[in-house]
Amino acid sequence: MSLKLSKFATSLTGDSGTTSLMQDLGEALAADRNYLMLGGGNPGSIPPVQSALREELAKLANDPERFNAMVGPYDSPQGDHQFLSAIASLLRDECGWDVGPENCMLTNGSQAGFFLLFNALAGEFDDGSRKLIELPLTPEYLGYADVGLDNSPLFRSRRPKIETVDSHTIKYRVDFDNMTLGEDSAAICVSRPTNPTGNMISDDEVRELQRIARAGGVPLIIDGAYGQPFPGIVFNDATALFDDNTIVFLSLSKLGLAGIRTGIIVGPAELIAGLSSMNAITNLAPGSAGPGLMLDLVRSRKILNLSREHVQPYYRDRADFAVDVLANAMGDTPWKIHQPEGAFFLWTTFPDIPLHSQKLYERIKDRGALVIAGHHFFAGLEHDPWQHKTECLRITYAQDKDDVRKGIEIVADEVKRAYDGA
Amino acid sequence: MSLKLSKFATSLTGDSGTTSLMQDLGEALAADRNYLMLGGGNPGSIPPVQSALREELAKLANDPERFNAMVGPYDSPQGDHQFLSAIASLLRDECGWDVGPENCMLTNGSQAGFFLLFNALAGEFDDGSRKLIELPLTPEYLGYADVGLDNSPLFRSRRPKIETVDSHTIKYRVDFDNMTLGEDSAAICVSRPTNPTGNMISDDEVRELQRIARAGGVPLIIDGAYGQPFPGIVFNDATALFDDNTIVFLSLSKLGLAGIRTGIIVGPAELIAGLSSMNAITNLAPGSAGPGLMLDLVRSRKILNLSREHVQPYYRDRADFAVDVLANAMGDTPWKIHQPEGAFFLWTTFPDIPLHSQKLYERIKDRGALVIAGHHFFAGLEHDPWQHKTECLRITYAQDKDDVRKGIEIVADEVKRAYDGA
Repeated sequence: MSLKLSKFATSLTGDSGTTSLMQDLGEALAADRNYLMLGGGNPGSIPPVQSALREELAKLANDPERFNAMVGPYDSPQGDHQFLSAIASLLRDECGWDVGPENCMLTNGSQAGFFLLFNALAGEFDDGSRKLIELPLTPEYLGYADVGLDNSPLFRSRRPKIETVDSHTIKYRVDFDNMTLGEDSAAICVSRPTNPTGNMISDDEVRELQRIARAGGVPLIIDGAYGQPFPGIVFNDATALFDDNTIVFLSLSKLGLAGIRTGIIVGPAELIAGLSSMNAITNLAPGSAGPGLMLDLVRSRKILNLSREHVQPYYRDRADFAVDVLANAMGDTPWKIHQPEGAFFLWTTFPDIPLHSQKLYERIKDRGALVIAGHHFFAGLEHDPWQHKTECLRITYAQDKDDVRKGIEIVADEVKRAYDGA
Repeated sequence: MSLKLSKFATSLTGDSGTTSLMQDLGEALAADRNYLMLGGGNPGSIPPVQSALREELAKLANDPERFNAMVGPYDSPQGDHQFLSAIASLLRDECGWDVGPENCMLTNGSQAGFFLLFNALAGEFDDGSRKLIELPLTPEYLGYADVGLDNSPLFRSRRPKIETVDSHTIKYRVDFDNMTLGEDSAAICVSRPTNPTGNMISDDEVRELQRIARAGGVPLIIDGAYGQPFPGIVFNDATALFDDNTIVFLSLSKLGLAGIRTGIIVGPAELIAGLSSMNAITNLAPGSAGPGLMLDLVRSRKILNLSREHVQPYYRDRADFAVDVLANAMGDTPWKIHQPEGAFFLWTTFPDIPLHSQKLYERIKDRGALVIAGHHFFAGLEHDPWQHKTECLRITYAQDKDDVRKGIEIVADEVKRAYDGA
């Protein structure tokens, strides 16, 4: 069979950060070689959380009626109604958001939700016009980069202002002087905490983005896959903000359920209804395993206790550990990190390093460690000749400490070699 | 927020059979009213099958290491490798198909797979040309109808030859006189057993379609969601056919796991690689619950025993029951059915009934029973003024016998009323 692919497939099968990341993860899992996994977004193993999840599973296995109701029938395209009611109730009570079940829906992971939402709001319109998703600040999540239905640009992106925190620490800030919207703006989108930098865009910054979005007649999208109220991997006192013009993405993945693929979208009811119809046609219905497993933990709010008492402290400790290891390993070699304020990545940058991040990534992989080259995280800035784009790596510190240490030491070695011109 | 939707979203949120079907199912599950569920594709409750599945779940709940490996990390975009190896081995040994794991992949249900595959092979191409999926025979599965990325036609369809089996029974046959392909043909696609008719396209017909596909340089797609080797809801001795130009869709849904969303695509390795990349960008990875739950049952081939000893006999019995009930209830009123050869639907047709199937459906719904109006199953024949399209209903006989009886009696009542001109 000679394979001739459509415009859509050609666009989705081109070289992409997402594809190479997921292939790396998949190959590493399947390979004989035991790679040090500092590359993907796999959550860590947190025993008390896993025990709690396994207890829920055991309850399902012992309750034929509930088990059958979970696995047998299709959920509605919006997702399991009991679970959506429990989520809405939690968000109302714990975060003060004015939402009901009609404001919530499920997708097979956040990525599937972003595919639907970005292509619903942006891209080509019936009158032939096109719209763009506004990224106030890059680096930003690489999974967004390739979801467009064709090869036309889907994003308008900006460099951040770079604040110096100390000699080895930076913090990215939204450059509001550069945050004007156009007729062709479809929505503003930020991940918070930011994947890959661990940046928590401040409450003030979020409020200003909400103001700009409302004034421009477009929604603000906040990707809270690592954020509040769960899994709550946030290291400062930022709050979970929402209003009737904001769309928030939540996820069960970083609680330790990435394999189960459960994304939650919270937003205006009219939008949720439209996305649910799109869910019906592209998926019939979202999977029932995530909501089935988590229903009681959401109803009892134990999901919040697990987040606060176990998930957040676990990653907080890992962040400190990773920074210590990096500082020790780098010695006199130049290095900076973004201030770790959430998520589970160390965003490292090596000023004026004479090696492209792709090459650096490959050398590190040859040594047995997987990280992600930083240049994948600049969707919309592909043509900006900004040196910083190729001087960064994202290092995941979610896994075993020993692996994190070994991996970071390999990174430090290879960075030194690169500075030495080798 | 005023919602302005893209071309893609406008197309996917338009009125569609899929959306109204899934909304019906969802509303019925959530509603106060207990509808008789003869409408959707929900599988029946088969106690020995559910016990076997629940045993697997209990094993997972009691095995922390396996549980963590299942729920925690992302699978590769192609799906869990162990499960794909087990599926390939089963297909090799039991069906004689020449396949390895590189020929198999998972999607979050078959619908998600068809969304990717149809839009990869058909639709718009980089040179501006368009291609169509060829449906040799309608009625055909309604879920295909709306998956196109825009409102342009995605299918070229044909009326079947209608064979008279007996005074109340017909069988649709492929009209090979009308089966020529064009330059714009992307693939040929049939569901087997056919949803909605329960037709098993014969082995000879499949071989002829394989010949035509190969000669035309396009693949043949066989949707085996209800078919062989599992769940094996086939009532005659047709065989599971495959070759290196055939793409087969299998599913765990009709074994009783529709909620879990696990579709399996089997086809040429190059195509599987391309679709896996598309899976990465649109979903990161497929869900791990289905493969996690079923791995041992596939490895041990117990999935085939369950299919042969429990699933097939259960639906075979239901089919006989439903036909008896219908024959008794209709009395002298005109009625015909398609010969039930597989799946779990009774395809009923009422010659010259003076009421559109949409109206008939609505009257039946008002009486508390959900069926599906037949006109949704003619994708690609929207402009064919064929009276037969509006004279049919699809009646699901998978659920409780008492419900099936009551539902069919309501259908019979309303059909009589319609013939009486009421």
